[in-house]
Amino acid sequence: MVDILGKLADDLEVVRAQGRYREYLNLERRADLAPGAIAHGEDGPRDLVVWCSNDYLSMSHHPVVLSAVVEAVERVGLGTGGARSISGNSIYHQQLEAELADLYGKPKALLFSTGFNANDSALSALGARLPGLIYFSDELNHASIIRGVRSSGAAKRIFRHNDTEHLRELLAAADRDAPKIIVFESLYSMEGDFAPIEEIIALAEEFGALTYVDEVHAAGSYGATGSGYAEELGLSDRITVFHGGFGKGYGGAGGYLVGPVEIVDTVRSFAVPFVFSTSSPAPVVAGALASVRHLRANADQREVLHARCRQLRETLAELRIPVLSRDSHILPVLVGDPHKNKEVSARLLRDHQIYVQPVNAPTVPAGTERLRVTPTSRHTEDDVVAFAKAIDQVWSSVELPRLPH
Amino acid sequence: MVDILGKLADDLEVVRAQGRYREYLNLERRADLAPGAIAHGEDGPRDLVVWCSNDYLSMSHHPVVLSAVVEAVERVGLGTGGARSISGNSIYHQQLEAELADLYGKPKALLFSTGFNANDSALSALGARLPGLIYFSDELNHASIIRGVRSSGAAKRIFRHNDTEHLRELLAAADRDAPKIIVFESLYSMEGDFAPIEEIIALAEEFGALTYVDEVHAAGSYGATGSGYAEELGLSDRITVFHGGFGKGYGGAGGYLVGPVEIVDTVRSFAVPFVFSTSSPAPVVAGALASVRHLRANADQREVLHARCRQLRETLAELRIPVLSRDSHILPVLVGDPHKNKEVSARLLRDHQIYVQPVNAPTVPAGTERLRVTPTSRHTEDDVVAFAKAIDQVWSSVELPRLPH
Ligand SMILES: Cc1ncc(COP(=O)(O)O)c(C=O)c1O
Ligand SMILES: Cc1ncc(COP(=O)(O)O)c(C=O)c1O
Repeated sequence: MVDILGKLADDLEVVRAQGRYREYLNLERRADLAPGAIAHGEDGPRDLVVWCSNDYLSMSHHPVVLSAVVEAVERVGLGTGGARSISGNSIYHQQLEAELADLYGKPKALLFSTGFNANDSALSALGARLPGLIYFSDELNHASIIRGVRSSGAAKRIFRHNDTEHLRELLAAADRDAPKIIVFESLYSMEGDFAPIEEIIALAEEFGALTYVDEVHAAGSYGATGSGYAEELGLSDRITVFHGGFGKGYGGAGGYLVGPVEIVDTVRSFAVPFVFSTSSPAPVVAGALASVRHLRANADQREVLHARCRQLRETLAELRIPVLSRDSHILPVLVGDPHKNKEVSARLLRDHQIYVQPVNAPTVPAGTERLRVTPTSRHTEDDVVAFAKAIDQVWSSVELPRLPH
Repeated sequence: MVDILGKLADDLEVVRAQGRYREYLNLERRADLAPGAIAHGEDGPRDLVVWCSNDYLSMSHHPVVLSAVVEAVERVGLGTGGARSISGNSIYHQQLEAELADLYGKPKALLFSTGFNANDSALSALGARLPGLIYFSDELNHASIIRGVRSSGAAKRIFRHNDTEHLRELLAAADRDAPKIIVFESLYSMEGDFAPIEEIIALAEEFGALTYVDEVHAAGSYGATGSGYAEELGLSDRITVFHGGFGKGYGGAGGYLVGPVEIVDTVRSFAVPFVFSTSSPAPVVAGALASVRHLRANADQREVLHARCRQLRETLAELRIPVLSRDSHILPVLVGDPHKNKEVSARLLRDHQIYVQPVNAPTVPAGTERLRVTPTSRHTEDDVVAFAKAIDQVWSSVELPRLPH
């Protein structure tokens, strides 16, 4: 008989030896301290400043969100007790879906427990329901998109990242009569770069494809009403389906889909990971609703966020520290070596109370290991100055190369 | 060019024509009214009593859960802002995992956003990491198990529901040296029947297989400390991996895995739907922690639940209304026809303010359409009497057959 646990233990040893075994920082992200937090380690609690959260607009701690959660949990409790179709619907789910449809100017919206689940559900169901469908998918699309496309069983063509010439070639080579959906992200989380949305839409229109855009990292942070980057470009009307989530800029949890009734209802009716799972707790939905409404009406946090990002970007440029992105609120600082990446992160934490998780292969290509630095609207100008000073010192002490003058 | 939306619209028309298009009841499951609730329809609000919730122990409304949620959200906010490994860990996640490991007497636990995600993650990762693995899976296993097994790419053998003779044949026929995992549920949600856990364990031991048991519908409601049905039978030590969730008896949301470090760490390190998704909001985790602790120390709600189930079971037997299960807290009332099933449900709602969702094919085999009736610990004896009276009347008015005397 085989020793299953022994085999798994050996594999985990390899993971450890490669420095890829994950230890989680035991974080207390206190509402009154953010972006400060307390890490509870073996030597007791330590103060630090978080520089790698997706809570870009600090909505997870915003009073409107907290009071919405409290009000909802006291009114209707925590769990819904069922999938949406079996007693698991709530007044908050209904309201949030109506709000999202209105925000994006599309007929219908649908909520999911996570953004991952939304992509996985939507893409697997559409692929399964549309015989002959071909997905055209950016090579850097998120794991949830890859999984949804794969489990749909549909054909797929992978285009080089943001390369519309390549996308055109693939579209032109495909059967003219095949149903086609182009899947991409408006803002790539690990690169911090935007998709060429207008060119992609133009290709979709030319070749009769639908567009499916994941706005998870842009939602809340871009556009006059915070719906995302397509809104900022004035292109929302020409997108078929929006995917988004509450786990990043909206400061909550969950995912959503907004688009034509036919698409949303197909996913709602046939997506296994949606149909057979308990719906999101009403207080989480109520918190998301408060956040969406707040960011729809108030641009202040977006403005602060982008101001801090500009400040950090300029400071890092002055220090000649390489940053991979040019204009988004995500600043991937290029280290280019897995061990040095861990070392930089460890020194920032140990010597400067700064927490940035290193991102290594296979999440990013080997040789492009990076620190994914994300300011939030609660970081102050002084926080940015302190961060820049810290990374400048660590950069020198680890002897990392700087950009040429 | 193809008309994708037109094709989907046609399919949805078929769903509608078959009576399978789902309309959700817009429910306000008020904490102060449970098991009563308010349905918000086009004609305004209506009072009803919910008889189809998985909130078996009414923990979604329990004061210890509500106050834990409020305390946590005020302390650390709503969203965690990241996956567990990238700033998305919290003191509550750490505490709940420690609590679960202790509750089940196993080395390690891991949390997931949903129970669906826990099965999908665990089974897909284990299958992918164990070359040659064969899953032995009960034919009535939940959609999340089926999806995890399928996306793992591992071989699978499906045994007839609860049929240990068939399982033995399949085990005996398989390569002696192949790694094997037997996957089953302790309590089947649509049947309300228990697995023959002891016989399955004995087979696993005989053939060197590991056991993976989904206790989602039993967790909280069985066992001296509420860990589930294996505990009730005194068999927890002989199970390899427990899967469970907070969305049913614990009254919250989320899933978990408890078992050997090697298995839990493999899933933690390699499961795509786990690694690449924002962790559960800290208040949801705090609520689950309060619920687990409460049900570990207090048996009162379990006792009330089972007393009400006995009462309902006896009353339905007196009325000769057929119930598919014999001894669990889930009472599937057999209607046996999709249209009559909808009709019974509609009349219960319209004439008796009782909400039970009809369960039709393909969720259950055609010809076995049923009402899945679930008492909770907040239903009173009078509620049971009222329910029995209502279903008795509706049963006659729809002219459904009764059991022989
Ligand atoms: C582009 C993209 N899509 C989807 C997701 C999944 O969203 P969630 O974290 O809510 O599961 C993420 C992040 O995790 C993401 O970066
Ligand atoms: C047996 C079983 N496993 C897993 C799940 C999924 O759990 P969740 O609803 O938390 O996604 C369910 C119910 O939905 C279930 O019945």
